[in-house]
Amino acid sequence: MKKSIGILGGGQLARMLCLRGSEMGYEMHVLSASASDPAAQVTGFWQKGDVNKLNTLKSFLKKVDVATFESEFLNAELLEKAHVSTGTPIWPKPSQMGLLQDRLSQKKLLEKYEIETSPFLAISNYIDLKEAYIELSKDFDNFEGLVLKQRKFGYDGYGTFILKTLKDVEKTKPIFKKVKDGFIAELFVGFDRELAITVCRNRKKEFRFLPLVESCQENARCLWVKGPVEHPELYTLNKKIKNFLNKINYIGIISFELFETEQGLIINEIAPRVHNSAHYSQDALFTDQFSYCIQAINNETLPPVEPISDGFAMYNLLGSSSKKPRLKLNPLVKLHWYGKADNRKGRKMGHINAVEDNADLALRLLRKSLGDFNL
Amino acid sequence: MKKSIGILGGGQLARMLCLRGSEMGYEMHVLSASASDPAAQVTGFWQKGDVNKLNTLKSFLKKVDVATFESEFLNAELLEKAHVSTGTPIWPKPSQMGLLQDRLSQKKLLEKYEIETSPFLAISNYIDLKEAYIELSKDFDNFEGLVLKQRKFGYDGYGTFILKTLKDVEKTKPIFKKVKDGFIAELFVGFDRELAITVCRNRKKEFRFLPLVESCQENARCLWVKGPVEHPELYTLNKKIKNFLNKINYIGIISFELFETEQGLIINEIAPRVHNSAHYSQDALFTDQFSYCIQAINNETLPPVEPISDGFAMYNLLGSSSKKPRLKLNPLVKLHWYGKADNRKGRKMGHINAVEDNADLALRLLRKSLGDFNL
Repeated sequence: MKKSIGILGGGQLARMLCLRGSEMGYEMHVLSASASDPAAQVTGFWQKGDVNKLNTLKSFLKKVDVATFESEFLNAELLEKAHVSTGTPIWPKPSQMGLLQDRLSQKKLLEKYEIETSPFLAISNYIDLKEAYIELSKDFDNFEGLVLKQRKFGYDGYGTFILKTLKDVEKTKPIFKKVKDGFIAELFVGFDRELAITVCRNRKKEFRFLPLVESCQENARCLWVKGPVEHPELYTLNKKIKNFLNKINYIGIISFELFETEQGLIINEIAPRVHNSAHYSQDALFTDQFSYCIQAINNETLPPVEPISDGFAMYNLLGSSSKKPRLKLNPLVKLHWYGKADNRKGRKMGHINAVEDNADLALRLLRKSLGDFNL
Repeated sequence: MKKSIGILGGGQLARMLCLRGSEMGYEMHVLSASASDPAAQVTGFWQKGDVNKLNTLKSFLKKVDVATFESEFLNAELLEKAHVSTGTPIWPKPSQMGLLQDRLSQKKLLEKYEIETSPFLAISNYIDLKEAYIELSKDFDNFEGLVLKQRKFGYDGYGTFILKTLKDVEKTKPIFKKVKDGFIAELFVGFDRELAITVCRNRKKEFRFLPLVESCQENARCLWVKGPVEHPELYTLNKKIKNFLNKINYIGIISFELFETEQGLIINEIAPRVHNSAHYSQDALFTDQFSYCIQAINNETLPPVEPISDGFAMYNLLGSSSKKPRLKLNPLVKLHWYGKADNRKGRKMGHINAVEDNADLALRLLRKSLGDFNL
């Protein structure tokens, strides 16, 4: 003490990292474009700038003892250069961020470490896609279609296309003109529900597994999360995740989105950062994901995972207009509001958490209090 | 939303108010002297300035929807003027802050609302004091001495003098030359332990009573707090507090320091703000004192008081040198560090919280982890 931490990016994840870091006494620095960014509002150490400019990165990193990011879609080479030039560690490692930001190398990593995921092919043009569709439809008995995903910069459904029929495939033609980075095509997997788990690892190789949760997406965007979920495969999955993170020597927090299918749990996507699916932890665990992230990148001993109730839930507050939001606070739920300058349809404006005797009661409580929010 | 809240003062109480307010999505504005103040570091809306200058207060209040303070020792008339001129509400009311900042009017209030407190006399000079000592020593069978207290600006033992003998009384002579605002002399009360309770009230007249706690002072400064404490007189005390706060129409959070004596619970001091004795609430209650304060001054419905464990404790981390503090974080306790620029002997640098199956276990855990702190 007094140690300073730099956050690359100024959105809600950065904001919540800042708040928790400040609580622990760290000087929280933020690099982002605008003073009205959610994180810029909650620190006295905001720097205006572009996270994808080398000189900006260098001047920012010089001011802090360690840095992390809130989005995996940064320029990994630039980050690595800035790290080497300033000597300031960035966790997770920029090279790993680079591998995970690309859905193709992410998939290959999962294959390499024998973690179940849906079959996939690299796709660079429309011809590839059509061939893949025809080929895979023959290879798999239960073929239900493909999911085409941009290799980079996809999130909340952007850059993801579900192709059930050959007609759907044909409709994708114009997309290939717009996107340069290429695609992957995954086998469409029917699933019973989506689950997620967030894991933390520090340089002492300590692990903490947060509870497994169920997450519900609407229009490809997370709507709610509830938990904890008990699952017979959890032990095996966690062992594989542990092996994977040990092998790549991952430092920081990481989130795995899962499909629960007839064939078992398979990994859908990985995000090397704090994650929407673990926001419940702010009010349902004694130590939340933001604390874990900060403690991991500082190589502090990680606290045990201690739920404070038998059930919990989180509900995202999504904008539904561009009008000024009106909130009436329900005293039984915990509001986390991001202070975004503008409301917008579908935009994540905040979230609410609840704890109860079980997950469904918590979710019910949140649903009941949704009427309080006029977004 | 988006509502802005102004905090007058930039110390640790202001810092913790800011962090919690930001979490709820408020724009947290701070008025304080230096950018290195604990609260100035955790907001993008810091204003440099003197909280005791009318123009500064006015320019600050104009920017916010509602304001509160972290210290009761502000200039009440100035605050009232700034409030009237800008129309920005300040809770608790400046006039009530003025009454409570003066130990004489505070005592008179307690008498008026029939809340037990130790017998007292106003003292303006040394002659008064000597007479009071002689008189009270005759009036009370169990006379054990007096406690001389400055009427204003006393805290953490500053401005408080324990006078057991007439010799002690004689030693106070020089003090009267230095202090202008006068004194009160209280009958010295032997007590078994010190307790404290924090209470919140909004404009809807909703009340929330936080758990009764035991607090331990060392060198007249709070060292630790543990709780909850069960007490047969708590119900009656809370009824009296409720009546008192209703009668004066108090808005905000308020803390009562108590003596547990042979004759029962008596009030020692009142502070019209968030209080060190309720810091445990950050990790031991679902809703903490800082949230309650913010919700009360915004006239939001107050959440129920929900302990997340059967026992809890808080330990203050006091500076013991001017060296740079070194902390090794114990993952089982929650650190709240204030980010103060300089370490200083006796200075409140941070605190740690723990929850356990009972208060003593929690306190034991905190004591064990004190070795981690090199202040």
